[in-house]
Parts: sequence; structure tokens; C-alpha cells
Amino acid sequence: VVAVAAEEMAALVERLGQVGAQPGGGIVRPVYGPAWVKARDTLAQMMTEAGLDVRVDPVGNVYGRLAGRAGGPVLLTGSHFDTVPFGGAYDGALGVLAGIAALRALRTQAGTPARTVEVVALCEEEGSRFHANFLGTRAIWGQITREDLEELRDHDGVTAAQAMAEAGGDPERLEEARRDDIASFLELHIEQGAKLERRGVDIGVVTGIVGLTQLEVEVTGRADHAGTTAMGDRSDALLAAAEVALAVEAAARDHADPAVGTVGWLQAHPGAANVVAGSARLSVDLRHPEAEKLQALVDDVTERAHSVVAPRGCSAQVTLAKHAPPHPMDEALRARLHQTATRLGYSAMDIPSGAGHDSQTMARFAPTAMLFVPSRDGRSHSPAEYTDPEAAAKGATVLATVLHDLAEG
Amino acid sequence: VVAVAAEEMAALVERLGQVGAQPGGGIVRPVYGPAWVKARDTLAQMMTEAGLDVRVDPVGNVYGRLAGRAGGPVLLTGSHFDTVPFGGAYDGALGVLAGIAALRALRTQAGTPARTVEVVALCEEEGSRFHANFLGTRAIWGQITREDLEELRDHDGVTAAQAMAEAGGDPERLEEARRDDIASFLELHIEQGAKLERRGVDIGVVTGIVGLTQLEVEVTGRADHAGTTAMGDRSDALLAAAEVALAVEAAARDHADPAVGTVGWLQAHPGAANVVAGSARLSVDLRHPEAEKLQALVDDVTERAHSVVAPRGCSAQVTLAKHAPPHPMDEALRARLHQTATRLGYSAMDIPSGAGHDSQTMARFAPTAMLFVPSRDGRSHSPAEYTDPEAAAKGATVLATVLHDLAEG
Repeated sequence: VVAVAAEEMAALVERLGQVGAQPGGGIVRPVYGPAWVKARDTLAQMMTEAGLDVRVDPVGNVYGRLAGRAGGPVLLTGSHFDTVPFGGAYDGALGVLAGIAALRALRTQAGTPARTVEVVALCEEEGSRFHANFLGTRAIWGQITREDLEELRDHDGVTAAQAMAEAGGDPERLEEARRDDIASFLELHIEQGAKLERRGVDIGVVTGIVGLTQLEVEVTGRADHAGTTAMGDRSDALLAAAEVALAVEAAARDHADPAVGTVGWLQAHPGAANVVAGSARLSVDLRHPEAEKLQALVDDVTERAHSVVAPRGCSAQVTLAKHAPPHPMDEALRARLHQTATRLGYSAMDIPSGAGHDSQTMARFAPTAMLFVPSRDGRSHSPAEYTDPEAAAKGATVLATVLHDLAEG
Repeated sequence: VVAVAAEEMAALVERLGQVGAQPGGGIVRPVYGPAWVKARDTLAQMMTEAGLDVRVDPVGNVYGRLAGRAGGPVLLTGSHFDTVPFGGAYDGALGVLAGIAALRALRTQAGTPARTVEVVALCEEEGSRFHANFLGTRAIWGQITREDLEELRDHDGVTAAQAMAEAGGDPERLEEARRDDIASFLELHIEQGAKLERRGVDIGVVTGIVGLTQLEVEVTGRADHAGTTAMGDRSDALLAAAEVALAVEAAARDHADPAVGTVGWLQAHPGAANVVAGSARLSVDLRHPEAEKLQALVDDVTERAHSVVAPRGCSAQVTLAKHAPPHPMDEALRARLHQTATRLGYSAMDIPSGAGHDSQTMARFAPTAMLFVPSRDGRSHSPAEYTDPEAAAKGATVLATVLHDLAEG
């Protein structure tokens, strides 16, 4: 057992959480901004203090290295350190900090490992400044080009390449961010849901990152005068769209957890209080960790959309807006996480990740697994994010112990 | 019987309908614009051709007068001649044209009447250029001030006073638009609904203009990650708002025709496809011709809004956005319209007006009544507006005959 203490996790979260903290609450730390630069330097300092060899690659990924006796492919852990606007101190950050604490524990409790272990603070995952998330992992795997960096622009028109250069990076040396020596990747992350907390479980072993299908539904009815058109004479597109939204919920519930379905926006046209809506559009976000079950949910929602609008004399057109297939996590690493948690006396359960993570890009190129620690009240992307230091330390201890076993095994 | 022929109604509709007609269909004739000026002059010409004494008041109301032998208070008929953007050739216009045809028929078929009869083409009713509908009727009754005309601005910042002056009117002489000699007002209008057509009834005798209450409902739930939050853990404000919209419909149906309830817009916040909505706002438009029944509907909708959102862990705040009381029409004039229609062999029925009309302002100051003629498929505020010339002529004949009886009685 390589143990990480709750006090260390609390201190690390407190220290990094001050960087980009806003007076009214919440953290604003978009990639390549001043707060991000300060966070990068803080993390590099933390890694140095942990006794690791630090380097920053040209896109801004920060590495802390604990060189092994035997060399060879690297056991990598980490997560991202950018935040959404007014986000919390845990999403991404906790995985980086747990990695730093784990490597410090490895070094001080177990000495030089056989194989090399590294922690990485990935520069960007949230996509909240540029419409390109996973910038850090994509650079590592050569999935982003110099041209992409010129085309990506923030709200002020600044390109990702300019922003990177201003923050001390170097878009001309993008290739130097590539790695071909990664043996495996482990990412600790907050759950961002309430399943672990509700069940009182310490560790979630992520089975995979869910597949996502986003649809747009356009409902066509007939615009009419709200005063002169009797209730029975209407083809009200807004009401038909409301029924589609409720049908999405009903379908997701019928397909049962972990299926989820969300309608995040709904717009009626012409959108005046005194006009029966002639048309309406709504978004549908459907997720499931298994590709076949996701497709079954998509098919069911599509069928229900058509059938609930028809009795109103409306029609529905369903178009695909976005699709990302599920990314299963590595079975051997998952088994090792379960065994280690059990050995340490922690409770653990399989859990799908409903959100995207750096691990989904990593999983395409290297054996990858994730462990979740509980999120209080399931909150995330919010100043209300919180994970108890004891719970965070249990996760970091599992991480450190698995890394130790992998490094020596 | 003073009869108006279908051919005359068809010709008048055809002639005025060309003014402001757009190449792709629909009429655009906002008050004081070039098309409106042309329509004003066309109507003045039509009135002259009908043998009437024509004058235009300072706000742009066009009068055609058939002076009576005895003088005294005036029997007025008419409607408005502005249109909504891409409106039809019948809303407002048909009431003006029926009035012109009726007065021509009176003059040619019955000679000089005992009392004076006038037709008015009111300058503005739709509120589609300035946020002040009933400009014409309000000027007649001193319900608008010189200051109002300076404060009302169109989308280009032009004041109503400037626009009026540019169109040949005179805001300085606003007082000259006032009338204190109106004995009664009769307005013919298209139904803008499908009740007459569906029942095959010729004439709708308007019982009153419905009362209107507009509410805004704010639903508060909790914003959550669409991927990580299980269906059972959500307080989805958009779904709660969808249930409110359906509850508005259910309440209006339960309160039975002529009650109507409409949700014309619904907006979710933050309004992203991948975020469970934390709050949502929607409009509610409720109408009923009887004040007590309207209030009962408002109370019922308010109660249902609270009760449908509660099981979702959401709350609703209901605020009053707008209220206009019902305006009952004059009973004696209504009885006369019924009797005359029956005498002429036309079918007639009582019908409430779900929309606002110039008659609601007139009714505050003089005995007022309205008659509706059928709208094909109930369409209005649309290029699809249509009323059969035979049906329009029946309405105009009832109008002419009632005016004749009033003028001689």
C-alpha cells in the first residue's frame, strides 16, 4: 500500500483552487489565460516540491517524472487543469493533484520504481475558450494540426496558436508534444453525479465513457391567432414539442439507468405570446455506455417524437446533430482498480462515465482506465463542486498503489 | 333591404389588396408608410366614387359622409386599413370596404337618409409599426396625447409624430381628430377563426370582445450535467415548463369554448443541449368573454402551474404581464343585427371576438356592435386570409340595412 493522506489532498486542492478564484465564487481558468498560466506554474512548483522532474511541452501540458530503474514505456496518470467559466476546484484539478500526491507517495514510501511513472497536468479539456476540447491529449497523440490551431478562435478572435504563444507555448513545435512511449493511462476524476454518494461507495471504477447522440427535432404545426382560434382547431407546435420533450424523458426512464436523455433547449416560432406557435425546435441529448443500447434509445426517441406530434396535426423532422461512440475502458486495468480498492478495504462499484474525459482520447491509443471519487450532491461545473478530502485521499491511495504495482509488476 | 352585390365587394377587395402587396405574397401596409399613404388615397377615391363627402382628419382617419336631412349625431361604420407585416387583404380592410359599399347602396337605393351616416377608414389598429394600437379610435376619443406621439417610436427610431407629418398628417392638430357627435358604431370584420365556416353560418353577431390576461411563468429547477446526472436525480426546469404548457391547454379545454389558453414562447436557461435546464420562462395568454370566467381560468392555470412542477422538485413563479377586461357589445344593436340577418334570410349566431378590435375602444364611448363574416379555414394575419365575395356581400347587406333602419328609425 502506498498511502496518500487526506490532509495533503486538502492542502493541494486549497492551493490550486485559489488560482482563478472569483470574488463572488467559482473559478475561471480558461486555457492560456493569465489564471491558467499561474495554475501551470503552480502545478510545476508542486511537482518540483514532490521531487519530480518537471517539464512543460509546447502546448502547455505539464509533466512530473519519477524515472524508473529499468526505463521503458511510461505509466502515465493525470487529468486537465483548465476550468469552465465559474467552475469548481475539483473537475480535472483533483486528478492532477491526486497524481502529484501519488507520485510523491511512491517516491517517499517505495523509492525509485522499476518502471518510469509520470503525472501530467493536461492543458485543456473543457472546450470553454476554443471549440476544441481535449487539446492536451490530442496534441500528445498527433490528433491536432498547426492549421487547427490557426482556425480555432476564441470570442475575441484570438487564435489558439496566438494564445498558446502568448502563454509561453510554441505552436511551431506542436510535434514535440507527441508521445510514443506511453504504456498506460490512469485518470482519477470526480464523479459529477450522485451515484457513489447515494450508495456510500468509495471508488467508482469507470466501465467506459458513454456514447452520445445529439438530435435536433423540428416540429411543424400551424401558426394561428391565440385569441380567435378555438382549442380544437389548433396544430400547436410548441405543445407538440413539449410532448416530445416529455417523451424523451419517458424513453430514457424506460430504457433504465444508465440511459439518460435531455432536452436542454426548446424554441418556438414566431415566439410571440399572442400567436399559436407554427413551428418549434428542440435539442435531444441521449447517452448510453453500450453502442447497441444507445442506438435503441435513439430509435425509440425518434419513433416517439413522430407519434406524439401526429395527433396534434403536427409533423416532426429528426436530424442527427452529433455522435460520439462509447469508449470502453481497459478491462485489465479496471480489474486491477477493483482488486486494489478491495485490498485496501474500500468499497468500489462499476460506473459508466456520462461525461467526456481526456481518457476517451487516451483510450484510442493506450490501455486506459478511470476511477471516480464521490461528488457531494452530484454537483459539477459549479462552485458547489466538493469532494471530501478523506474520499479524495482514498482515490489517490488506490491510484498510488495501482501505479506502484504496475511499476514493479 | 339595402343590398350590396358580391361583384362590388370582390372588386373593392381586389383594388385595395393591390396596395402594399408583396411579390412573394402578403400585404405590408404599416401606418404612415408609402403603401399606407397610397391606400389612404385609394380609399378617399373610392368614397368619392361612392358619392360621399370625403375628408381626412389630422391623424389620417378617412371619412366618407352621407349627410342626412335631419343632421344630428352620426351613425358611424368602418374599420382600420393598416396591416400586419405580410398580412392579408381582409383583416380591417373588409370592414372599411363594406362600409363604403353600404353607404353607396344607401345613397343609390334609398336616397338621402334622415340621419347622417359616415364610413371611417381608421388609420391604425394593428400596432405593428408603433407599440400603440387603436391609434385612430384613440384619437377620435381623445385617448392619445401629443406627448404620446413623440414617445412612440418605430424600429428605426422615427416617432409617430414625425411619421404622421411625413404622411401628410398634422400632430399639432391632434385635437381636431376628436369627435363628440357619434351616435353609434358598427364594425364588420372577418371572424379570424373557423366557427362560422364550420357551422355554415353567414353572420356572427359579436357578443363582446374577450378579456385577456397574459401571465409569465418562471420555473426554477436545478442545472445539472446532462451526461452524469441520472434521470431520477434531476429537477429539470424545461420538462416542468413543458408540463405547465400542457396544463394551460388542459385548463382551457376544461373551461370549454370560448375559453382559450396559449403558450407562445418558452425559453430554457442556460439553454445548452448538454445541460439540464436550471430555469425556464414561458408566456401564458388566457382569454374569455366573461370577466368572472376569465378570472376563474387564470386562477386554475396558476394553481395547475404550481402543482405540475412540484413533483419535479421545481417551483413556479407566476406574474401578471398584461390584462384587458372584456368589452361587451351593445345589446340593442346586437338584437337589431340578429333581426336584420333573419329578415334577409341569412343564418346568424352569437360569437365572442377572441381578438381585439377598434370596437373595444369605441364601445367605451358610444353604443357599438360588430358583425363577423366567415374566414376561410379560420386564417388571418396571413396571405391565406380569404372571405368569399358572396359571404362578404351578405355581411355588407346586413350592415347597409341596419344603417338604413337606424337612419330612418
